[in-house]
Amino acid sequence: MTSIKVAINGFGTIGKRVADAVDAQDDMEIVGVTKTGPSFGCDLAVKKGFPLYCTFDEPDRIARFSEQGYNCLGGLSYLMAVADVVVDCSPGKMGADNLAKYQSAGVKYLFQGGEKHELTGRSYTSSANHKENLGVEGVRVVSCNTTGLSRTLVPLYEYCGSLKVECTMIRRAADPGDSSKGPINAIKPVLKVPSHHGPDVMTVKPEIEINSLAVAVPTTIMHLHAIIADLPEGHGLTTDAILAMWEETPRVIVMNGSDNRITTTAEVMEMARDIGRKWGDLHEIFVWEDGVSLVGNRLYYFQAIHQESDVIPENVDAIRAVMGIDMDWRTSVAKTDAAISAYYNL
Amino acid sequence: MTSIKVAINGFGTIGKRVADAVDAQDDMEIVGVTKTGPSFGCDLAVKKGFPLYCTFDEPDRIARFSEQGYNCLGGLSYLMAVADVVVDCSPGKMGADNLAKYQSAGVKYLFQGGEKHELTGRSYTSSANHKENLGVEGVRVVSCNTTGLSRTLVPLYEYCGSLKVECTMIRRAADPGDSSKGPINAIKPVLKVPSHHGPDVMTVKPEIEINSLAVAVPTTIMHLHAIIADLPEGHGLTTDAILAMWEETPRVIVMNGSDNRITTTAEVMEMARDIGRKWGDLHEIFVWEDGVSLVGNRLYYFQAIHQESDVIPENVDAIRAVMGIDMDWRTSVAKTDAAISAYYNL
Amino acid sequence: MTSIKVAINGFGTIGKRVADAVDAQDDMEIVGVTKTGPSFGCDLAVKKGFPLYCTFDEPDRIARFSEQGYNCLGGLSYLMAVADVVVDCSPGKMGADNLAKYQSAGVKYLFQGGEKHELTGRSYTSSANHKENLGVEGVRVVSCNTTGLSRTLVPLYEYCGSLKVECTMIRRAADPGDSSKGPINAIKPVLKVPSHHGPDVMTVKPEIEINSLAVAVPTTIMHLHAIIADLPEGHGLTTDAILAMWEETPRVIVMNGSDNRITTTAEVMEMARDIGRKWGDLHEIFVWEDGVSLVGNRLYYFQAIHQESDVIPENVDAIRAVMGIDMDWRTSVAKTDAAISAYYNL
Amino acid sequence: MTSIKVAINGFGTIGKRVADAVDAQDDMEIVGVTKTGPSFGCDLAVKKGFPLYCTFDEPDRIARFSEQGYNCLGGLSYLMAVADVVVDCSPGKMGADNLAKYQSAGVKYLFQGGEKHELTGRSYTSSANHKENLGVEGVRVVSCNTTGLSRTLVPLYEYCGSLKVECTMIRRAADPGDSSKGPINAIKPVLKVPSHHGPDVMTVKPEIEINSLAVAVPTTIMHLHAIIADLPEGHGLTTDAILAMWEETPRVIVMNGSDNRITTTAEVMEMARDIGRKWGDLHEIFVWEDGVSLVGNRLYYFQAIHQESDVIPENVDAIRAVMGIDMDWRTSVAKTDAAISAYYNL
Repeated sequence: MTSIKVAINGFGTIGKRVADAVDAQDDMEIVGVTKTGPSFGCDLAVKKGFPLYCTFDEPDRIARFSEQGYNCLGGLSYLMAVADVVVDCSPGKMGADNLAKYQSAGVKYLFQGGEKHELTGRSYTSSANHKENLGVEGVRVVSCNTTGLSRTLVPLYEYCGSLKVECTMIRRAADPGDSSKGPINAIKPVLKVPSHHGPDVMTVKPEIEINSLAVAVPTTIMHLHAIIADLPEGHGLTTDAILAMWEETPRVIVMNGSDNRITTTAEVMEMARDIGRKWGDLHEIFVWEDGVSLVGNRLYYFQAIHQESDVIPENVDAIRAVMGIDMDWRTSVAKTDAAISAYYNL
Repeated sequence: MTSIKVAINGFGTIGKRVADAVDAQDDMEIVGVTKTGPSFGCDLAVKKGFPLYCTFDEPDRIARFSEQGYNCLGGLSYLMAVADVVVDCSPGKMGADNLAKYQSAGVKYLFQGGEKHELTGRSYTSSANHKENLGVEGVRVVSCNTTGLSRTLVPLYEYCGSLKVECTMIRRAADPGDSSKGPINAIKPVLKVPSHHGPDVMTVKPEIEINSLAVAVPTTIMHLHAIIADLPEGHGLTTDAILAMWEETPRVIVMNGSDNRITTTAEVMEMARDIGRKWGDLHEIFVWEDGVSLVGNRLYYFQAIHQESDVIPENVDAIRAVMGIDMDWRTSVAKTDAAISAYYNL
Repeated sequence: MTSIKVAINGFGTIGKRVADAVDAQDDMEIVGVTKTGPSFGCDLAVKKGFPLYCTFDEPDRIARFSEQGYNCLGGLSYLMAVADVVVDCSPGKMGADNLAKYQSAGVKYLFQGGEKHELTGRSYTSSANHKENLGVEGVRVVSCNTTGLSRTLVPLYEYCGSLKVECTMIRRAADPGDSSKGPINAIKPVLKVPSHHGPDVMTVKPEIEINSLAVAVPTTIMHLHAIIADLPEGHGLTTDAILAMWEETPRVIVMNGSDNRITTTAEVMEMARDIGRKWGDLHEIFVWEDGVSLVGNRLYYFQAIHQESDVIPENVDAIRAVMGIDMDWRTSVAKTDAAISAYYNL
Repeated sequence: MTSIKVAINGFGTIGKRVADAVDAQDDMEIVGVTKTGPSFGCDLAVKKGFPLYCTFDEPDRIARFSEQGYNCLGGLSYLMAVADVVVDCSPGKMGADNLAKYQSAGVKYLFQGGEKHELTGRSYTSSANHKENLGVEGVRVVSCNTTGLSRTLVPLYEYCGSLKVECTMIRRAADPGDSSKGPINAIKPVLKVPSHHGPDVMTVKPEIEINSLAVAVPTTIMHLHAIIADLPEGHGLTTDAILAMWEETPRVIVMNGSDNRITTTAEVMEMARDIGRKWGDLHEIFVWEDGVSLVGNRLYYFQAIHQESDVIPENVDAIRAVMGIDMDWRTSVAKTDAAISAYYNL
């Protein structure tokens, strides 16, 4: 088996995480990561031994790296020449330009959820549509929120055959390392109603009917979803049966908040730090066992989403999908996660 | 017309506000307010000229007031002897004891939303059931959240004849002057699902079907409701018609957030400060005009609730109701609000 | 006595407050306030009966007001023609342009602390240098922080004859109605050390040696100063003597935090709401009695500053100063404050 | 060389971190950790392969572990029997009881900074007094704040021969996983002035004169120190010389905030996550290069402190000290830190 050669275009918050997750796998390897110029993040690439490239091909931009003592192997086009697949982790709104470059270089590509579905016409999350994306030219790995919703809704949908969902998203207003954004003491409703967040699930599982409302609140650590799902008549489920279903679902953690003193997203994050992944990441969606209740056909539950990390292992699985590796989604997910656990010695 | 003699039992956050609102009216007057002992709040009573009583009848407790230089006219039973109606604004869980005292003194009584409906068997909010409470012995004025939901839902219900509602309540985790409570950087779901908040609306309008989910977030200034209401088939309404309905509804403010740069609860509170009521209060429910959308039969909207003040004018109307004043709810509300505006010279 | 004719150039956060404070006085009156265009703030001017002008003289800008139904009496130059003195409350960095306009119109002028001392060459705060500014052409009323420091330091300096001060300023990172600024969960040091804040005191009392460090923290309601002041040898003071001095000082509140459960700035603001000034303002500097300690020659204390309001009454006194009213500072301050109390019926 | 046998009494926030740091060393090993009962933290011990003991000796408490499926090897006294040294990481106020147990068992002991200096009569931090604590019976490893102050002040003191310091501590009000404590939107001064924090430095370096003021602010991630240090006449230092000194000092990071976009404690924590230690810890003190300024004899600077981790490597060095290992402090520190880096594959 030859190793899949993976390029990371944009070695920032998402890029550095995907690079580690790829590096952990035995069937793929990092052939290069890009930075726009010499900066703190280059040290991280050097420390990890990832070959360093420039996001741009302009010679003077490339020259700046060596001026700061970094060994830059060339521009993006050089990196494309040695890669099988590129994971685009560049900041938003560069998608269309980058897509053209990837296509002309003839490499497979992944985009992230910050790009629109329309860019690639294909969206991906492992539990929803791994098989449909086997061997395709490229996909968009969906956003943290869509990933989180898919994790718990897709198994429900597959059991029930239909599902109608409303989700109120209580979003962290800023990232942990973003100190310029507020609000400090306010709640900010997203005035476009219904919001665009929920319906994005339909890019990976069109049969789920879903809408959403969203608000931003003064916290930096996790999003929280308050979900109402209407099951079809005669679903035959109970609250316990649904909990059992999620306990079997990969990348979903079901825990009793009262018994474990995990009453807020802060304590979820502390639990994640104990798990021991780098950056205190939590790849799993956290569901409060004692916050799930099926009343007639209507299911109520809460789940917490670690914005910068739940999509990381999905990128690994998506690489296998676009490369046409013949493996069902559960096998890929299990392989991905076991390798990551071993990498961090968990 | 003789003036209704009103006692305030508990001159704290709610009590001081109700006292001002009563003082503003021409058909009622404050005959006394109680404090548990001499403290900062007594100065406020003295400044306003409200007779001061002790929450308890024990002589040594009463004596403490004069030791600190306050003129205390006696214990609660003395105050009951000169009052027609008492507004109970004591901290929670004293309801049952106090109820017995009020009944044995033969005064009418109001309780606040911190008490359960079962205490009095009757709950009140002006737009929902003013007439049903005319002349009754006593009522509970419902909580800030129930008041807020009733303001916008009751007119919808009355137009449509039926209504099925889900509300996600994004609650301020602590009061503005409460500096001990957190969380500082987390979201806290209320793990009892569905939560008790929404169904409380049915204590004043049993025909509205309603459930809710609740989370607490790190802000101290307002609650926000994210509401989904299912209208019956053939309702005949449009988004604009619903906005027009609310613009006609007393104590509801409908404003465009984008046009007025009111994008969060912080800016709603700044607008309230400009209105100029004491304490920066906002008696009205704030609805973002551009956050309302009717999609088929499902209505989505956001509203913001000023926890410590939306119930204040309701207490004035409830006094008229229990005293059996023959006045419809809109007339009472208009009279109450005009008097408050004049009082603060708005 | 003819009334001093006061114009407010910029009817925003500071301007609307100064307008109210001027309106409260019997020796001055508001002859007009400016807005850049028709907006929410115009309603407030109309409600108060303040004549409305446009910040600019361009006819098309003036015309926009009437298009929105406001009666605009003309541009800034029209307002200058009817004013004795203008209080510049425009946003920062327009100072130099405006100064030229005021001088050419021959009106006296006040600027706020957002402008540099060099703009006018004169800075003002009542307790420090009222007399020195009698009859001058114009002054800058110093910032909220400089005002706060002067209130407690000037009487100390005047008693001791010399004073060497270090102040660490723990600043609110955003205004209450500003929901875009962060940080949400971080402390931000002002990396220019020492910071510019403390030395600004020397623009009103050059004899006080002072430096400062500043940090911004995630709160929206007040600044807090942690102050260390070195008194000269043989000062003869005690902690109690200093507290007694401040209790005699106008616009300083000294309260015991432990006895009154005022342990944070949140509870200070709640106390301010009880005082009952519009907008919940606190014109006074708040000093925690139990947070003051003189150890040898070194004095430690904390004080809290209400950013948007402590300078408001200072503007009134400064108007009297520049207009050459023959009144010592304590008389002016007492007159100003009594009129404001009466205005709000406190 | 035989390995030092280390027991951790209290496997919580600090205990789990010290256990990892000890486990990383080649001259010591974990012989057991205690929990008060079966809980989430036991899983972490099992995963790491640390023998599990009960904090108490009561048989029924010990039995509870096996009921939950954990293999508990016995009570504290059993653990003491196999240990050379115990690191006490139990919650505060159990110190006196525990000390008696350790002494009667004849094991060396470390306490943490939550205990008072008087408990052991000896306090420790590597840069200040490693040698003085060689072979002693036991010491208190000083608190996160005292550790942080010692790191930057001790080398200054040793160069200058005397030092007079004032520190204003801007403290995080709650730990990251503590969601019950506030304030959410306020600043809380510690009304005991000067505060107890600064003078604690004198338990490890009595020659440094130091006082402090402290405030708590609504953040959960780091403390920040605003420091003013008076150097003696003729010190011969410059800002650059001091920066160079700190760059040579172990466990101090000096970085330019402006160049690296590290303007707040949030961004410092993000940098720490990139370093890659478990839990996102930062053992080092962070000094903003561009926030250091020597003005005459007075030095101004800011430093940030990661509360739950800066003391972790100090515990390792303190173990060597009390065990009488003949090694100077710099050698021990270098050995400790290199082993930790290797452990986490940094």
